[in-house]
Amino acid sequence: MKKHNFYAGPSILSEYAIANTAAGVLNLDGIGLSVMEISHRSKEFMAILNQAKTLVKELLEVPKGYDVLFLGGGASMQFCMIPYNFLNTKAAYLDTGAWSSKAIKEAKFFGDVEVVASSKDKNYSYIPKGYSVPSDADYFHFTTNNTIYGTQLKEDPEVGIPLVSDMSSDIFSRKIDVSKYAAIYGGAQKNAGPAGVSFVIIKEDFLEKIVKPIPTMLDYRTHVKGESMFNTPPCLNIYASLQTFKWYHQKGGVLAMQKINEEKAQLLYDEIERNKLFRSPVLNEGDRSLMNVTFIMTDEYKELEAEFLSYSAYKDIVGIKGHRSVGGFRASIYNGMPLESVRHLVETMKRFESKI
Amino acid sequence: MKKHNFYAGPSILSEYAIANTAAGVLNLDGIGLSVMEISHRSKEFMAILNQAKTLVKELLEVPKGYDVLFLGGGASMQFCMIPYNFLNTKAAYLDTGAWSSKAIKEAKFFGDVEVVASSKDKNYSYIPKGYSVPSDADYFHFTTNNTIYGTQLKEDPEVGIPLVSDMSSDIFSRKIDVSKYAAIYGGAQKNAGPAGVSFVIIKEDFLEKIVKPIPTMLDYRTHVKGESMFNTPPCLNIYASLQTFKWYHQKGGVLAMQKINEEKAQLLYDEIERNKLFRSPVLNEGDRSLMNVTFIMTDEYKELEAEFLSYSAYKDIVGIKGHRSVGGFRASIYNGMPLESVRHLVETMKRFESKI
Repeated sequence: MKKHNFYAGPSILSEYAIANTAAGVLNLDGIGLSVMEISHRSKEFMAILNQAKTLVKELLEVPKGYDVLFLGGGASMQFCMIPYNFLNTKAAYLDTGAWSSKAIKEAKFFGDVEVVASSKDKNYSYIPKGYSVPSDADYFHFTTNNTIYGTQLKEDPEVGIPLVSDMSSDIFSRKIDVSKYAAIYGGAQKNAGPAGVSFVIIKEDFLEKIVKPIPTMLDYRTHVKGESMFNTPPCLNIYASLQTFKWYHQKGGVLAMQKINEEKAQLLYDEIERNKLFRSPVLNEGDRSLMNVTFIMTDEYKELEAEFLSYSAYKDIVGIKGHRSVGGFRASIYNGMPLESVRHLVETMKRFESKI
Repeated sequence: MKKHNFYAGPSILSEYAIANTAAGVLNLDGIGLSVMEISHRSKEFMAILNQAKTLVKELLEVPKGYDVLFLGGGASMQFCMIPYNFLNTKAAYLDTGAWSSKAIKEAKFFGDVEVVASSKDKNYSYIPKGYSVPSDADYFHFTTNNTIYGTQLKEDPEVGIPLVSDMSSDIFSRKIDVSKYAAIYGGAQKNAGPAGVSFVIIKEDFLEKIVKPIPTMLDYRTHVKGESMFNTPPCLNIYASLQTFKWYHQKGGVLAMQKINEEKAQLLYDEIERNKLFRSPVLNEGDRSLMNVTFIMTDEYKELEAEFLSYSAYKDIVGIKGHRSVGGFRASIYNGMPLESVRHLVETMKRFESKI
């Protein structure tokens, strides 16, 4: 029996990815060895790595002149590597939540940071607009999707300087124009695979901006030159991610995922609007995340929060407790989340309302 | 059908670890979710992490006052983190091979490095002895086992300053006295689990030596304070490592592993001595690795190298081609390697000799 898994991350993966990963752990393509115990230099693993890179490029329509890297350490390590490599005089950052703030904190370690706008004044319940980005900054960094607050920046901004974006929680969920970016990165554990591997899509000519001496493992040039194989990569995680990419490919690619993601989010937001018990904490409808649907109880029914959580658990719903910074609930409906689980949650919200 | 897997790393894992990891990927302990898709803050994953830490402490008899961390990024990231945190004036390093050299290169980025001895003069075919370690160095760093060259430093040195050791390829293979070390680290992909997670055993009072400002993710204090959960850890890899630790526990712990490791290595070294086709490139018998048994063809039979490789492959032996720096062959016989596979290799060497 499967649970309805709404965890914010690590989070739901497709049955396809799970079954294929388990099979590869037992016996990779019938070679008589586990994917966990083959050399990263073996022809079998090289094929896995190359296929994973190729599928990322295909799914995101990555133009020529970009490299796809799979690195260890998580997006938090990228918060450090980005400014270590690229912050020479000043960097511009948009502050839209907890992850942006962490990225800003690390950037300040390496140089001047101009926070061009922040929605901290209203507990990150909206995406700032109308800000201006200094033309002399080395790059402009932003987080596309804010898992905790349930907001999302759904356009590729045009700001005239290199764009660097943390897309940990919405990569592969909607069409993006990679050609507008100098670097896109993220931890895998939402839409790209299990925790333990990060993806980095980096424009080769952006690497020319690196002028500081940097420790080997923190220098993007090491990993571009080494083709993600400078040191032993997280092989098992890359294999599991490949299964996720294959599944996306089979389902029709990113546009197909986007269509169903919009449908899933609409279902849930419509119910939040309709149901007298719940409301969205996000100020502008256009800023609502398609990946993390946050909802809180209306003031009148506030005391029913724990009861709704228990009722959901009884209905095999896992992981909808909201982050303490927002409270209430959060349904993370990443690419791996089937429509029927969203329908089940909506049904559960309706039933709970009818019992009140 | 299983192959006889002699890969140097990622390398053989026990059938127990492989089967249990596959089971957890499909459905973790019957909870209806994959270990890949549960939150790292869930009670299930917290139990996995705590059990893994507890078993490492138990298996290695880690004394009080030490922390066990599981981090992403591989041992190569530790080559950078160790000096970033602890090299304040000067560090002493022993150079016994490729991994030591990489660690030395990174340390030089952060300050003065005194290489107390090196066996580079003879292609790292021995472990230097009789060197002296400066008493004013911040720490003394060495690699216990040299995967490429097949040498091993099997004692815990007494040098009067904090010991820092890369034990990537022989942790859990033999008894060590953790109390003599300030820090022990390594990539998992030999004796601790699949690639994608590193272990760090660190003495708490050693952290007091940190005086520089350090980016958050590179600061050991972040991970000690965060109990390996500052950011999302490589959950799947930690789960697979836990299965390895459980298997060690079932088999009788590190001393039991050491006994069988000595038996496996003896079998193979005896055959290398006996067989007219092969010889060990390691100069001193006492320096021979129990984990990576390197052997080359004697000058007389040099031209049979490719033929022996083909014959071994035909006999279902995988991964015994030696590293290009040494040539010949390398049989990596980590903890996960069953005695019968070593016997099979010895038998194959005998049969090949009898055909000549």
